Amino acid sequence: MAAQDLNRDLIGVAGGRWQLQTPALVIDLDVLERNIARVAAHARKNRIALRPHAKTHKSVEIARRQIEAGALGICCAKLGEAEALADGGIESILITSPVVTERGIARLMALNAKVPDLMAVCDNPEIGAMLGAAARESGKPLKVVVDIDPGMSRTGIAPGEGAIALVEQVANSAGLEYAGLQCYAGNLQHLESPNERRDRSLSVMKTLAELGDALAARGLAPNILTGGGTGTFDIDPDARTLTELQVGSYVFMDRQYNEVWQKPGDRPPFEPSLFVQTTVISANRDGLATTDAGFKSFATDAGPPVIASGAPEGASYFFFGDEQGGVLYDTSLQKLRPRDVLACIVPHCDPTANLYDCYHCVRGDVLEAIWPIEARGRVA
Amino acid sequence: MAAQDLNRDLIGVAGGRWQLQTPALVIDLDVLERNIARVAAHARKNRIALRPHAKTHKSVEIARRQIEAGALGICCAKLGEAEALADGGIESILITSPVVTERGIARLMALNAKVPDLMAVCDNPEIGAMLGAAARESGKPLKVVVDIDPGMSRTGIAPGEGAIALVEQVANSAGLEYAGLQCYAGNLQHLESPNERRDRSLSVMKTLAELGDALAARGLAPNILTGGGTGTFDIDPDARTLTELQVGSYVFMDRQYNEVWQKPGDRPPFEPSLFVQTTVISANRDGLATTDAGFKSFATDAGPPVIASGAPEGASYFFFGDEQGGVLYDTSLQKLRPRDVLACIVPHCDPTANLYDCYHCVRGDVLEAIWPIEARGRVA
Repeated sequence: MAAQDLNRDLIGVAGGRWQLQTPALVIDLDVLERNIARVAAHARKNRIALRPHAKTHKSVEIARRQIEAGALGICCAKLGEAEALADGGIESILITSPVVTERGIARLMALNAKVPDLMAVCDNPEIGAMLGAAARESGKPLKVVVDIDPGMSRTGIAPGEGAIALVEQVANSAGLEYAGLQCYAGNLQHLESPNERRDRSLSVMKTLAELGDALAARGLAPNILTGGGTGTFDIDPDARTLTELQVGSYVFMDRQYNEVWQKPGDRPPFEPSLFVQTTVISANRDGLATTDAGFKSFATDAGPPVIASGAPEGASYFFFGDEQGGVLYDTSLQKLRPRDVLACIVPHCDPTANLYDCYHCVRGDVLEAIWPIEARGRVA
Repeated sequence: MAAQDLNRDLIGVAGGRWQLQTPALVIDLDVLERNIARVAAHARKNRIALRPHAKTHKSVEIARRQIEAGALGICCAKLGEAEALADGGIESILITSPVVTERGIARLMALNAKVPDLMAVCDNPEIGAMLGAAARESGKPLKVVVDIDPGMSRTGIAPGEGAIALVEQVANSAGLEYAGLQCYAGNLQHLESPNERRDRSLSVMKTLAELGDALAARGLAPNILTGGGTGTFDIDPDARTLTELQVGSYVFMDRQYNEVWQKPGDRPPFEPSLFVQTTVISANRDGLATTDAGFKSFATDAGPPVIASGAPEGASYFFFGDEQGGVLYDTSLQKLRPRDVLACIVPHCDPTANLYDCYHCVRGDVLEAIWPIEARGRVA
């Protein structure tokens, strides 16, 4: 039986949530809906558009809900992710990482023929020339956003003469349509000092605005200025530079983003809607229980998960190898036994969602729906 | 197009390996075959059986090759993994983690009805009673191996009176067939001191042998004594206690296991056959290139990968977020550019394989086959 079908018989059953075969990835629908509504209200209030990043959820259903709530379209990190979401009917997609190989560019052209509003990024003149030639040959212009390095040197071309020349090249390429600029400061999203996060983000935005002005002076004003993330969602709009926000993690939140807003008086603007549900499978030593969720059930790049329910106050979770987790807890409060069920806030939502084939969507104790994660594993 | 089909047109094409859409998980078939043959020869020489752990590869094709090379059957970590490999025709499976929930036990009975030689483990008398009742009702006895804790407290019951009582319960249960003992010291596999690895492993084996003797004195001699891993594959047979080895990682190896044999004069007994192939997508700063493989393309619990080819001597790989990797290198040797291709030895093979839908199997520069990873993500 496929993973998506293991728990299908529990849909609508009272208390069914706690009978899921685990590890299972669970979405609290009430919270998900609040997060989507909250960011939409924020964008409306600040008169900025939304192009949420689907690399977080990789799900057609969630992308649809984001668009229904007012988003222009979505971002995808990779070509394969975009292909999967386009197959699900998503019609406006920005692929935020450069597509650079000949075979990748051929796939990009096939996708461009199919998707009404597809945009690719470019940070390199040679690749820009390849894109232009391929698009010309394909017969449909490809919209291109020039990717600007916010100073982290991951992708993007540094703002300056090189960037201006690349914009000119794209704008003058017969096959390409110059759509604007992308500038995403991934390195600033998790800064825990609100002042540092604000100052550095506004500084990046200032540099970007200056580049935009220089381009406008050459008749190349960017139509779209896209960037920003969950960590700076309420900072970037103040700069009045970006035209749209690429927020992603806000739909789910995770331990890592919760910790961004942990200073006294600070409260995370979004709530955790994503949980890994796990079951105790062994408990033969006092104060230690073993669960069924280890390295294969959580992304581990951001440390351990937080136990949200099912274990005594103060219990901590550790990874106990590929297949298992461990829970250290105070036995004077409760004794954990095999079959006990825990819900955990994930350490890092994007790569954790990428481990699972489906979301188990609950409202309270009821499993309401099972959504496939169409773009899971579509990293190429 | 599904991930398995992205590169199908390259099968048999000269140099096709280096044109794969990436990130891609690549197996060097010559090395895989040598590793499988090497462990089989080792087992024959030491007159010990093999039940390789399929949690490493989750692949029907690799399980078949291990069985063809002489293995009795395979181990699976989870019920879902066993279901997937049974669907592929594997007929002898030991599930090495306890199955404890009512719904899980119902699935276990359905699998037992289908698989000629299925074994489950148990480390808890209440769960043993549930297994017995379910098996009685199912009409086919369930073979049960009692799981013994090697002292790491992950799963298993401590050797002693409790363990003996559990064996007696299993042996006397009308629905169950007592098959033997499991004892897997996962905590000793990566000890880098050969002496410590040997001494502690032999000490666990001695305790296990004593338990076996105590059981034999009660007419409950274990038929199977199963355990061991790649880190102790050449130690465990010396104890003459285990009847079979659960070696898993030897098929692929990884950075972590390579480092177990890094002392002077020490050489890893198996060779790395598994690689993540990745492509440079951006290289706008001297000495730093950005690839397309980040947290979603490598398990990150064991640190960064090792670059095996494609970058100058001394280059190092770091994770550059969910979607990208970074390569720091000496530009006096070579200048990396977009479209350059790197092959990386994975940090930890099992959870990395669990990220991908298929293996791209190469011989030299030729892509020979694409194998699905049937049990990928089957953690429940």
